[in-house]
Amino acid sequence: MALIVQKFGGSSVANPERIQRVARRVVETAAAGHGVVVVVSAMGDTTDHLIDLARQLTSNASAREMDMLLSTGEQVSIALLAMAVQSLGQDSISFTGGLAGIRTEAVHGRARIQNIDPANVHEAIQNGKVVIVAGFQGMSEDGSITTLGRGGSDTTAVALAAALEADLCEIYTDVDGVYTTDPRVVKAASKISAISYDEMLELANLGAGVLHPRAVEYAKQYNVALMVRSSFNHNPGTRVEEVATMEQGKIVRGIAHDMNVVKIGLVGVRSRTGNLKRIFQSLAERAVNVDIIVTSVVHDEQSDISFTITGDDLEVTVATLQTEFPEVQLSVEQNLAKVSIVGAGMISNPGVAAQMFATLADAGISIKMVSTSEIKVSTVVDRDLAHEAVKSLHTAYGLDSAAEAVVSGLKE
Amino acid sequence: MALIVQKFGGSSVANPERIQRVARRVVETAAAGHGVVVVVSAMGDTTDHLIDLARQLTSNASAREMDMLLSTGEQVSIALLAMAVQSLGQDSISFTGGLAGIRTEAVHGRARIQNIDPANVHEAIQNGKVVIVAGFQGMSEDGSITTLGRGGSDTTAVALAAALEADLCEIYTDVDGVYTTDPRVVKAASKISAISYDEMLELANLGAGVLHPRAVEYAKQYNVALMVRSSFNHNPGTRVEEVATMEQGKIVRGIAHDMNVVKIGLVGVRSRTGNLKRIFQSLAERAVNVDIIVTSVVHDEQSDISFTITGDDLEVTVATLQTEFPEVQLSVEQNLAKVSIVGAGMISNPGVAAQMFATLADAGISIKMVSTSEIKVSTVVDRDLAHEAVKSLHTAYGLDSAAEAVVSGLKE
Repeated sequence: MALIVQKFGGSSVANPERIQRVARRVVETAAAGHGVVVVVSAMGDTTDHLIDLARQLTSNASAREMDMLLSTGEQVSIALLAMAVQSLGQDSISFTGGLAGIRTEAVHGRARIQNIDPANVHEAIQNGKVVIVAGFQGMSEDGSITTLGRGGSDTTAVALAAALEADLCEIYTDVDGVYTTDPRVVKAASKISAISYDEMLELANLGAGVLHPRAVEYAKQYNVALMVRSSFNHNPGTRVEEVATMEQGKIVRGIAHDMNVVKIGLVGVRSRTGNLKRIFQSLAERAVNVDIIVTSVVHDEQSDISFTITGDDLEVTVATLQTEFPEVQLSVEQNLAKVSIVGAGMISNPGVAAQMFATLADAGISIKMVSTSEIKVSTVVDRDLAHEAVKSLHTAYGLDSAAEAVVSGLKE
Repeated sequence: MALIVQKFGGSSVANPERIQRVARRVVETAAAGHGVVVVVSAMGDTTDHLIDLARQLTSNASAREMDMLLSTGEQVSIALLAMAVQSLGQDSISFTGGLAGIRTEAVHGRARIQNIDPANVHEAIQNGKVVIVAGFQGMSEDGSITTLGRGGSDTTAVALAAALEADLCEIYTDVDGVYTTDPRVVKAASKISAISYDEMLELANLGAGVLHPRAVEYAKQYNVALMVRSSFNHNPGTRVEEVATMEQGKIVRGIAHDMNVVKIGLVGVRSRTGNLKRIFQSLAERAVNVDIIVTSVVHDEQSDISFTITGDDLEVTVATLQTEFPEVQLSVEQNLAKVSIVGAGMISNPGVAAQMFATLADAGISIKMVSTSEIKVSTVVDRDLAHEAVKSLHTAYGLDSAAEAVVSGLKE
C-alpha cells in the first residue's frame, strides 16, 4: 500500500458535477489499495466572490479577517468532497488546515508553514478513511486561521506529503503535465515525462504556470516525488523528482516565455553613495519583483542600470523612482517579453547560450538583455517576436521531435 | 461599564448594507463605554444555498460534514462584520465558535453546549476590542466543528452571556419585541415591556417565534437578563427576566396560536401490555413531537387515546402507527389549530380557564381538546376559527387596552 497525496485546484471542484468526478478519481485510488490524502482549493470563483463582499464593506480589510473570510472557501470544498466520496461508499473525513495539524507563522495572507503535526491525518488513514484537507490554509499558534498566499494549495499538498512521508504527491490540473513549451504557441510542443526539481523551478518561475514555485522548492527541500497530471484523463503526466531520467540526451528540457516584461533604464546613478542598494530596497519594500538586472559603470562615480519588472508593477515603480530619486534619469521600454531555455544539462555544455543567441540572430530577433543561471538562459526580446523566438528555439534544441518520441514511448 | 452581548440573526446581516447597519449599532454601544460581544448568524439564505449544494451530491450527507459545511456560513458573517466594525474606527476581532471557547458534545447537527471557556473573549474585550462570535456552532473535544441545531444562535448568545457574566443579552430581531399576540391577527396587539422566563418559554414554545425556547431555558437556568428588540429602530423592546414587573395586574400576558395542528385518535389500545409506552416511544424515535395527549380508559383492558402533532409529522406518524400497531383503529383530524393563553398570574387565579372556555363558547367556537400547565391553558379548535378565538380572548383578558397603556407608558 502506497500513501498518495492528491491535490485538486479550484476549477476541478467548481460545481457539484466536477466534485463528483474528483470523488470518483479519489475512490479509484483508494480502491487500488492506497492510502489517500486529498488537498482541495475553493470552488471556482468562490474566493473572488468573498473578496468582492469584503470590498463592499471596506477598502482596507485587516489581513486576519480576510483569512477568516477566505478560508471558508476551502472549508466548503472539503465538506462537499467528503460527502461525495462517502456517497460512493468510501469512508472519508474532512479537515481544515488547523485540524490537519498545519501550523504556520502568525502572519496573515501569506503565512509560511512552520511545521505539520500529522497525527489526526495518520489516525484517519489508519482507520481506512480518505482524508480531505483544505488547501491554502493553516493555523497559527494562537489558534487563528491563516492563509498561505498564492500557490498555497500546491504548497499544502507538498508539505503534507513531506510530513506524511507519502510515496507520491499528485498535482491535478487542467493540462496533461509540463510541456516543452506552451502548446498554444508551438504545436509540436509536448509533455515532458520527467523533469528535475531545479528545472521545474526555473520553468515554474518563468511562467509555465502548472505548479507554484514555492511548492516545487518545498518538494526539492523534502525530496517529495511530484506528479503533475490532468484531472480530465488518466494520462501519466510529468514526474518531478531529484534526478530526472535524461531524455535522449537533450540538454534543453523546456522553453518558457513571459509576455509582460518592462525594462527600466536608470542613467547616471551615483554608485559610491549606496544609491544602488537604496533603489532596489525601496522597490522591494513596495513588493516590486525586480528580475534581470544589468549594470555598467560609466566612470568611477556613476553607473547606468537596466532592470526588468512585470508590467503590473510599472506604475508603482515609476512613481517610487520619481519621488525618491528625482536626480536619476529614467527610461521605460514596454512591450517586451522574456524567452528562456531551461535544462540541467547546460552546466556541462558551454555552447548552449551561444547556440541560443545564434538561433535568435538567424531568425532576425535582437536580444535586449541576457541573464543566465546554471540551468537556464533568459533573453529579453520584443514582445511581437517572442512567439517566433520560442518556435525557433524549440526546433533548434530538438524538442519538436524529442517530445514526440516521449509521447509515443508512453503509448498515449 | 456594562458588558453587553448582542445577537443579530441572518436577515440582519443578509447583505453588505445591512452588515454596515449592524456595525454602526455595535459601535454605538461600544462608544457608550460598554464592552460588546456580538453573536451573528449566517447571511440571509447562505445556509439554504449550502444545503442545496450538499443535496446535489448526496441525499444522505454525514452530520459531521454538514456541520463542516454549514459552519462556514457564520464564519463569513463574523469576518465581514469585524471588517465593517473596524472600518468605523473601532477595533474588533472575530472568533469561530471553537475560538470563542464554546465546547459541545461530540454530536453533529444538534450538539448541546457543555461549557464555555471565555478566556479568548475576555482578553479581547480587555484589549478594547468588540468581539464578534459565530452563532450556532461550537467545537467538540476532538476539535471537530459542531452545530447547535435550530435556534442555535440565540442559544450561543445566551450561553456566552452566562459564561461572561454579562449584564444584558440583547436579541435583535425584525419585530419590536414580544407582543400580547400576533399583530397580524389582532391589530390591538402590542408589545409587552417585561415578561418572566416561564411566560416567555410558554410563548416561545407556542409559536411566538421571536426567541428560541432553548435559549430561554438557558437564560432562566443561568439567570441571564434578556432583551428582545428590533434591529431596525431604537425602541426599548421586551425585557425577559426572572420576575417580570406585573403590568396593571393582568393575569394573562399573551395569547399564542399554532395553525398547523393535527389530532390523531387511537381506539381500542390494549393498555395492560405496555402498548401506550411503545406507541409514544416509536414516535419519539422518529422525532415526532407529540404535544397534547388525552386518554380515556374504556374498560379495564382498553383505552382510547387522542394526541396532537404538527402537520409536518402527519405522514411519518400514520406510517409508523399503521406498520407497527396494525391492530389499532386510527383516526386523523386535520385543519386544527392550538390557541393558548399564557400568564404567571394564573396560578393564583383559578377562574382563568373557565373564563377562557366561556369566552370561546360565547364566540361559538367549540373546543376539541384542552391542556393546562401552571401558567398556560391551551385549547385545540378548528383552524378556521382560530383567529376569531385569538381576537375574542385578547379582548376578554383586557389585553387590547393594557397593551396601549404599556406603549404610552414607555413613550414610544
